[in-house]
Amino acid sequence: MSSKDTIKYAERKSIFQVEEQLELAPKFNEDGLLPVVTTCSKTSEVLMVGYMNEEALSLSILSGEAHYWSRSRRSIWHKGATSGLTQRIIQIRIDDDQDSLWLSVDVQGSGASCHVGYRSCFYRSIDLKNGEVSLKFEEKEKVFDPEIVYKGKENPTKL
Amino acid sequence: MSSKDTIKYAERKSIFQVEEQLELAPKFNEDGLLPVVTTCSKTSEVLMVGYMNEEALSLSILSGEAHYWSRSRRSIWHKGATSGLTQRIIQIRIDDDQDSLWLSVDVQGSGASCHVGYRSCFYRSIDLKNGEVSLKFEEKEKVFDPEIVYKGKENPTKL
Repeated sequence: MSSKDTIKYAERKSIFQVEEQLELAPKFNEDGLLPVVTTCSKTSEVLMVGYMNEEALSLSILSGEAHYWSRSRRSIWHKGATSGLTQRIIQIRIDDDQDSLWLSVDVQGSGASCHVGYRSCFYRSIDLKNGEVSLKFEEKEKVFDPEIVYKGKENPTKL
Repeated sequence: MSSKDTIKYAERKSIFQVEEQLELAPKFNEDGLLPVVTTCSKTSEVLMVGYMNEEALSLSILSGEAHYWSRSRRSIWHKGATSGLTQRIIQIRIDDDQDSLWLSVDVQGSGASCHVGYRSCFYRSIDLKNGEVSLKFEEKEKVFDPEIVYKGKENPTKL
């Protein structure tokens, strides 16, 4: 794949075109991004929510591996480049108004997608008891140790 | 449920607290919103991506029915209030840095979640053939006729 290979997106002309026809005419937001839901093709669990800009979507379509836009690092993020946990894309879907994406992927290596070490970034649920809300762990054990895999790298979580 | 019932969110104090502990401390974005992935609890398919503000999340947790923030109408959106296709919440999960949500729901009525009439908003996939990209319908038939269900209402899709 040469760096000249990029996907051309269609101009958004009508609601009928965007919702009912076959042109890829994504609506990137004011920051130039689309939210992306990534699920595991085998278990269907939601692994993560990320963002793509025009280039990340083009790279993902052409390479077959998930590329996102890292909002914390402000750069293209080839998911798994550091950890080896790349995401092979099985299918990309787009929603009615073409402003969000759904990726179904096979994760390579240990199968984890979360920088904290869990399979899914959504490892906790919201629990309501007697009017009080708290979180509950739905994954009991980490798949990998982020201290080893990401040694010396900054944690992307921002307060 | 009285209008005084609201969920109290914790202050975000440390990465350890946000990622590894049990306090609900969501990070709403600069518009006061969190992206929300909604999946069908029975089939696991992704039905839609929406947004919640503090109030929509609180209403969703307390009522057990999905409430979103409608960016086009700029108001709280009790999903299904017009169409009868309400979403009964089975589980809410939150991600590592607490800036996105995953709702697993049972959709009432015909089971559809898309204003165009399909079950899922993600009724088309992205298809790459000979370097050309186009969309392909993954759902073949609409579940309901939006012309009837939403008669006289403005289409929320924006160009």
